[in-house]
Amino acid sequence: MNITVTPGRKIIGRLAKGEDLLAALEKVAREQGITLGEVQAIGAVSQARVGYYKQVERKYYFLDLAHPLEILCLTGNISVKDGNPMVHAHVTLSDGDGRAFGGHLAEGTLVFACEFAIQEYQSATALVRRMDDPTGLFLWPEK
Amino acid sequence: MNITVTPGRKIIGRLAKGEDLLAALEKVAREQGITLGEVQAIGAVSQARVGYYKQVERKYYFLDLAHPLEILCLTGNISVKDGNPMVHAHVTLSDGDGRAFGGHLAEGTLVFACEFAIQEYQSATALVRRMDDPTGLFLWPEK
Amino acid sequence: MNITVTPGRKIIGRLAKGEDLLAALEKVAREQGITLGEVQAIGAVSQARVGYYKQVERKYYFLDLAHPLEILCLTGNISVKDGNPMVHAHVTLSDGDGRAFGGHLAEGTLVFACEFAIQEYQSATALVRRMDDPTGLFLWPEK
Repeated sequence: MNITVTPGRKIIGRLAKGEDLLAALEKVAREQGITLGEVQAIGAVSQARVGYYKQVERKYYFLDLAHPLEILCLTGNISVKDGNPMVHAHVTLSDGDGRAFGGHLAEGTLVFACEFAIQEYQSATALVRRMDDPTGLFLWPEK
Repeated sequence: MNITVTPGRKIIGRLAKGEDLLAALEKVAREQGITLGEVQAIGAVSQARVGYYKQVERKYYFLDLAHPLEILCLTGNISVKDGNPMVHAHVTLSDGDGRAFGGHLAEGTLVFACEFAIQEYQSATALVRRMDDPTGLFLWPEK
Repeated sequence: MNITVTPGRKIIGRLAKGEDLLAALEKVAREQGITLGEVQAIGAVSQARVGYYKQVERKYYFLDLAHPLEILCLTGNISVKDGNPMVHAHVTLSDGDGRAFGGHLAEGTLVFACEFAIQEYQSATALVRRMDDPTGLFLWPEK
């Protein structure tokens, strides 16, 4: 499945120290009324919580990294789930030895410093997440 | 070398479970006739194959990661090689312990779930990959 | 803090073998007069130097990776510091075993091959980095 979209607003900003990274990005999307878009960010966190989906068990497992990490790359999108804008983002992090870690960004990841960019898109068709039987995940329609 | 380009179409979509990640992205580019652009994606794969270029030997080595991984970040571009659109993408992946891996995305990487975005660009000058003597890689012109 | 910006020029290009990655990207920004924007790149480096910010000590530590690495993802932005365009970029790298590393991109990272894209933005408000007391970093204004 793919759709052609047109660019809407572009928003660049900084999140505040101590904010929950995922919740803060979703707050921007909701306050601005963005229901379709892309998110990117770099920065650092004081602690992180990331998910890994066990594809056979069809269940998310979460890993807590309880120490400061650089955000090497946050990449994600905004679409609609249960009637609200939802940010789906994956995050790559690095520790003091330069080793990289990451996963599905979960609440519990706390901003130390973060510079983000959100690109809104407009589309004739809303992208809505619904339960996808083959994967057990909330995904966009297959067709 | 750099060129200034103008934005074309933006396509957002989902790849199907079981598709080859690289081949599926190239299929979108070819079907849409996109010869210049950018690609981004997140999601998960059931297995991955990534390349590392040995710069002294001037040869790619490929690593098979034969287990499920999150796609933390796929970043790439679309340009022309041998007359056809070619996707050049690098991928960052994470395992169940949150450790990150990655490399040059090769065929043999199978989609579990994948949300992608392709931005087309238009340019007076086509970007065509040709053998670059200093590196042994197919690159855009140096000047 | 966030601002809504409008797209300016999009520049796609290749850096030359042997260039300093960070300095070369800043050179493009300065030559083109870009004071606000985003940067992305993939490619490979012959060696890398990346920073990790010790949040409690409020001090950057730098790690030298003195061997060839793939650039899995370079993500960054352009804004103004001390009156000049400054590139702030984080980089994810991988070695011959596919393991990923990364950090705050520092000078001393040498290009083997690199394909980059810079998106300029225009804004009524310039984004200027100033010392931020809570973090000890040069950041955009909090409000």
